[in-house]
Amino acid sequence: MSVHKSWIILPFKDMKWLGHPVTSLPTPAFLVDHDKVAKNCNDMLNKCKQLGIKLRAQVKTHKTVEGADLQTGGTRRCIVTSTLHEAEMYANNGFEDILYGYPLIPFHLQRCYDLRSKLQQFHVMVNNCDIVTTLNKTEPPAGKRWSAFIKVDAGNNRAGVCWQNTQAVVDMACQLSDGPHTEFQGLYVHCGNSYSAGNLEQVKTVRDLNVERALHLTQELQQRGITCKNVGIGSTPSCSQEVSTRMSSLTEIHPGNYIFYDSQQESLGSCSMDDIAVRVMTRVVSHFPDRGQILIDCGFAALTKQGYGKISIPGYAHFQDNPNLKLVDMTQELGKVEAVHGKLDYSQYPIGSILYIYPFHSCATAAMYPVYYVHHNNCITEKWYPTRGW
Amino acid sequence: MSVHKSWIILPFKDMKWLGHPVTSLPTPAFLVDHDKVAKNCNDMLNKCKQLGIKLRAQVKTHKTVEGADLQTGGTRRCIVTSTLHEAEMYANNGFEDILYGYPLIPFHLQRCYDLRSKLQQFHVMVNNCDIVTTLNKTEPPAGKRWSAFIKVDAGNNRAGVCWQNTQAVVDMACQLSDGPHTEFQGLYVHCGNSYSAGNLEQVKTVRDLNVERALHLTQELQQRGITCKNVGIGSTPSCSQEVSTRMSSLTEIHPGNYIFYDSQQESLGSCSMDDIAVRVMTRVVSHFPDRGQILIDCGFAALTKQGYGKISIPGYAHFQDNPNLKLVDMTQELGKVEAVHGKLDYSQYPIGSILYIYPFHSCATAAMYPVYYVHHNNCITEKWYPTRGW
Repeated sequence: MSVHKSWIILPFKDMKWLGHPVTSLPTPAFLVDHDKVAKNCNDMLNKCKQLGIKLRAQVKTHKTVEGADLQTGGTRRCIVTSTLHEAEMYANNGFEDILYGYPLIPFHLQRCYDLRSKLQQFHVMVNNCDIVTTLNKTEPPAGKRWSAFIKVDAGNNRAGVCWQNTQAVVDMACQLSDGPHTEFQGLYVHCGNSYSAGNLEQVKTVRDLNVERALHLTQELQQRGITCKNVGIGSTPSCSQEVSTRMSSLTEIHPGNYIFYDSQQESLGSCSMDDIAVRVMTRVVSHFPDRGQILIDCGFAALTKQGYGKISIPGYAHFQDNPNLKLVDMTQELGKVEAVHGKLDYSQYPIGSILYIYPFHSCATAAMYPVYYVHHNNCITEKWYPTRGW
Repeated sequence: MSVHKSWIILPFKDMKWLGHPVTSLPTPAFLVDHDKVAKNCNDMLNKCKQLGIKLRAQVKTHKTVEGADLQTGGTRRCIVTSTLHEAEMYANNGFEDILYGYPLIPFHLQRCYDLRSKLQQFHVMVNNCDIVTTLNKTEPPAGKRWSAFIKVDAGNNRAGVCWQNTQAVVDMACQLSDGPHTEFQGLYVHCGNSYSAGNLEQVKTVRDLNVERALHLTQELQQRGITCKNVGIGSTPSCSQEVSTRMSSLTEIHPGNYIFYDSQQESLGSCSMDDIAVRVMTRVVSHFPDRGQILIDCGFAALTKQGYGKISIPGYAHFQDNPNLKLVDMTQELGKVEAVHGKLDYSQYPIGSILYIYPFHSCATAAMYPVYYVHHNNCITEKWYPTRGW
């Protein structure tokens, strides 16, 4: 066994690029428009205020302290994470009321114990009876209980107990309510099937169905004397629409992507292109007029290969202010760009010139970057360092 | 403008997980089999020895010091990088004879100047006359010249001067040879078109064509009194085959992926499944017998969505020792697994049990991880920390 060099991380003030124009950055670069992010976050907070319910923001899209500060309106309360590592990072930064929103397995219990010790409010998510039994056999930190949401699958066909399986939900809720070490927190529905909706109306239909199914189960539990302290639905498409009055019967919603949005969300009617707060900045690195292409320094390492065939033009992504450009292929560090119609005017895209790309899926693209450059107009004002790993 | 907290990084000895069994790691985890990596690296070095040519290893697949140590046989000499950031990292770790193997644009010149100052041998790659003119107008560090390879496109249709455009190659080589600040290093051919070959024979045909075209241009230049100090072809498929005698007329080859290999390479005949040195370790997190699925904790954040429809079974990836499993869909942190034929036997895959996935494209998958766990048999012996960014 050899012992290897690793790294320790200490905070310091890294001023590099702050105050500089965005266009001075090396490319590819991940840009975050601060005003747009702030507006997206405030709009969702206001929507929840209007409904009289909580926003439990999903933080997996950005994985930064700064982004979650904006999502929680500075309270650092009430978030949901997609990994234990995120939950730990936020707990270490003073966040509270954290839901580890992932199917719990026994392997995760030690780290959950540590989080439960540290936090006043920490919740896990369960989707089968066995893990509830395990929780009740596992001593929680002194004076505390394991607080658990039941994940309900209301049509998404991913994680969760099927909404039609009332008995299973009742059994788990009883076990959680009656068990020596557990506390039933309520129901969590993701409604990820809103992503496969074809348009705004279909998204609303999916959203309404998810709300009804969540509320129906809540009522079934209530009739058996079990109270859901919290019941919520999520997903950015379903929560970005005009609200329905029925949503005020929930206690919370938990979208995440809305902080950035992306062209996938635009196509689902969640936002306009102008609401998209993040872009990949890239430079032209070569001209190939013989085959009608330019090369840019945005390959899959800077964008991911998600999105092909799923946007309104052929290729992987939309270019800001250049509707006639399409990104037809990518290798690790190079992208091939062609004209959607007619021929490319190379004089418009000299070598070294800058183009901006709207990601198809900002959660996936953001994960490719060690740093996000946050800007106000063309000036870099902050750098956000996302956490990563599990 | 607000000033934000950032991070400074200092080396220390992080012993966590060293000496532990691989199966104790949190999942998803990226595993590197040290014996296989060492064998893959030695085999390629031996192949070059046999041919009497140099190996200029491409390091973009792993981006670690340790991996490049194995690729260079411990010499830390003669590598090619896909980004300036990689070149800088390797230069800071005592590597020499580094080719920044990317189409050079004027924006990169300042950082190239710093690398040229620091290194005895640092090369850039050019694919048009304008950048050669710019190089000759740019003062290099005292007593040095800008050493440049001409990138030649021998059929790959990505970067490089088209191999049929002899005049352009001659003009650029003359400019580099005669210019006040430049030095002509030779020709660089990627032969990435070997990836679209259907089988081993087609890969060999592509490889041979690339070799012939590179040598033809070398001869054309020689007839005009211009000597290529170096001429090489690359790509792991073309360099993993049985060598051809003509390859000994080259001076170097520059494959990269061979350090890890992956199922894409296996399908091209570059390696056997047993040669693949990297795997994603994942755990089963849920059972859904009603729809014939299990969920695993390997989503696209742990694997990428590359590979769908490109392997010998439906889905995104092969599971080691489980040929009847297919990965049919992924969201950020969850993968859906089904049986290829018949029904899943859930008793074989209890919740919490471990599965191993061979990545389709190891360059892409490796980039998703902050740390690689290197193991000997089932014991973790090292941790490698890849660099990232541009």
